[in-house]
Amino acid sequence: MSSITLAEAFAGTAYPVPGHGVRNVNVLIEALAHMDGELDSDVYGTGKLIEDFQHKIASYLGKETAVFFPSGTMAQQIALRIWCDQKGLRRVAYHPLCHLEIHEQDGMKELHQIEPVLLAGKDRLIKLEDILEMKEDIACLLLELPQREIGGELPAYEELEAIAAYCREKGIKLHLDGARLFEIVPYYQRSAAEICLLFDSVYVSFYKGIGGIAGAILAGDQAFTERSKVWKRRHGGDLISLYPYILSSEYYFDQRIGRMEQYYEEAKELAALYNQCRGVTTRPLMPVSNMFHVHVELDKEQLEPLLISLYEETGIGLTANLRPLGEKGCYFEISVGDRYTGVPKDRLRGAFQLLDEKLSELGEFGRTR
Amino acid sequence: MSSITLAEAFAGTAYPVPGHGVRNVNVLIEALAHMDGELDSDVYGTGKLIEDFQHKIASYLGKETAVFFPSGTMAQQIALRIWCDQKGLRRVAYHPLCHLEIHEQDGMKELHQIEPVLLAGKDRLIKLEDILEMKEDIACLLLELPQREIGGELPAYEELEAIAAYCREKGIKLHLDGARLFEIVPYYQRSAAEICLLFDSVYVSFYKGIGGIAGAILAGDQAFTERSKVWKRRHGGDLISLYPYILSSEYYFDQRIGRMEQYYEEAKELAALYNQCRGVTTRPLMPVSNMFHVHVELDKEQLEPLLISLYEETGIGLTANLRPLGEKGCYFEISVGDRYTGVPKDRLRGAFQLLDEKLSELGEFGRTR
Repeated sequence: MSSITLAEAFAGTAYPVPGHGVRNVNVLIEALAHMDGELDSDVYGTGKLIEDFQHKIASYLGKETAVFFPSGTMAQQIALRIWCDQKGLRRVAYHPLCHLEIHEQDGMKELHQIEPVLLAGKDRLIKLEDILEMKEDIACLLLELPQREIGGELPAYEELEAIAAYCREKGIKLHLDGARLFEIVPYYQRSAAEICLLFDSVYVSFYKGIGGIAGAILAGDQAFTERSKVWKRRHGGDLISLYPYILSSEYYFDQRIGRMEQYYEEAKELAALYNQCRGVTTRPLMPVSNMFHVHVELDKEQLEPLLISLYEETGIGLTANLRPLGEKGCYFEISVGDRYTGVPKDRLRGAFQLLDEKLSELGEFGRTR
Repeated sequence: MSSITLAEAFAGTAYPVPGHGVRNVNVLIEALAHMDGELDSDVYGTGKLIEDFQHKIASYLGKETAVFFPSGTMAQQIALRIWCDQKGLRRVAYHPLCHLEIHEQDGMKELHQIEPVLLAGKDRLIKLEDILEMKEDIACLLLELPQREIGGELPAYEELEAIAAYCREKGIKLHLDGARLFEIVPYYQRSAAEICLLFDSVYVSFYKGIGGIAGAILAGDQAFTERSKVWKRRHGGDLISLYPYILSSEYYFDQRIGRMEQYYEEAKELAALYNQCRGVTTRPLMPVSNMFHVHVELDKEQLEPLLISLYEETGIGLTANLRPLGEKGCYFEISVGDRYTGVPKDRLRGAFQLLDEKLSELGEFGRTR
């Protein structure tokens, strides 16, 4: 049996399937290759370099103004704080698996004393019903589209419209966690601007589907974004120079924004291959963006050696890591990017056939096919 | 009379005197020019790229551990918060012109509810006496070496030792705002590690004397830096990739850390030239680092056209901007960097002679020569 880790085996495959590529220094070097070196740095949030990009993304999102932030963690806490201050109420609502709830060391609570109301269950989307049933008054509702931690699900657009209408009526600000907003435009068949029209403030990220290095944009009306700049300085995010992130964000935005439809179609194709394997189900069953989760009815410890041998035999890499899932089973996340199109489809199908065989050899799964 | 601004006239000179050079994208391109593109990105504060640099700077500072931050604003608020939490007291002391007090939109107060005690007057350094007379109990004392906003002054080393001994005795943590720590090592004739031994925590910056793009290090013992990583995430500073700042910080650190003695000697030489001009005084009179302030007994509006014509006649650029000073007069800040050594000394002396003549033509100044 092999003594290498799954990540090492994945890194050694000829055809890794998910993602855009390795996150190494070449990502920055490529972005700078044809850049004018005489271009002046941004200076503490000012200057042509940062202002032009902010205008460009504000326009793409259909918002009056936008501010570039080093991170979404910073941008979103600040958005919620502004809406809380405006209403004089430090309470917001979001999903139990919201990024602010599980990945930010409680920054929102510790730095801003904002209390969250958790809507919906951990395994499903927030519905209008959940909001109607909420007993607490809140300043802002945060919706994440797609809901990443449950595989990247989306509500029907009509549900979104109904939620937005209700919030407007009740004086609740609606904030979009659009970490993967670019990636859902093909599914909704509506422009980003049309989707953002339902929201008072919007955050987007440049290192998911766009594949940049880091960085985020927070967009909204001018009073909102001006306020956000004050909080950006307070958080320590108003760097003298953010241009390494801005230039690379713009470079990869221009390169990949037109490929989102392709990634989405490929994600559906790839998910179908997974769903043909014994004991494997994708969530969602039919992806609505470039991402999905793969649930396998085998423990991490059982699946790992099976995948390592699959990678070594086929040269196809499916994932670099597995995470345990409840009492039995494991899962992993897939984001389709530039790599997928370069994978020979016959070899890919062969690898999935072999995966199905290897899984079937392991005997009975709880689930029928 | 010229219709261009002082900044434009300065940018047009053949020999701008202060600083390292223009802050443009070439600063990043140069740092990456010989970099191995296959080097893996840091990932949320982990990986060889960030860890190696943290070890290197921790070792330079003589501290157990160090953490790279996107900004000093973030690093210092967090340092103070950790010491406040440890003592269960949200009160610190610092100079009235401390960066946290005047340049951070009250982030420390708004995000951490920490109350500052302001020690000393706005025109002088903090002395041991000020600390002895302080009535409030505090968790931490922040000292900035050199004190930038008064021109970059330094206390005698013995005074520092006495302050450190008193703080240790009283259970007050001592934090070093070392934004320009590298720059004062030649004056104290002690290693950075020896200076830092007096402090429980230390912040250093990579875009002042080092001339990098942005970024900071916070150093201290392991319990302190581990805690700082949690707060770094809360602030939104734990980016997936900080390597554009880390690589450029290291590149320029290696290039310039050995030049600090030279910058210091050149600063003294340059300050002497200023002090020979009528109505001009540097602060400090004799610099103790690569920086000083130049006070001129003329209003900004009077001095600006005079400097513009000086730049046009001599090709020597002294400063890009002036700031008003009290009721009468103005000042500007000088940091000596790589440019100084390339300025022909006869032309420089000629420019200062002309400056003195132009100032003298304007008539009486309040001060005798």
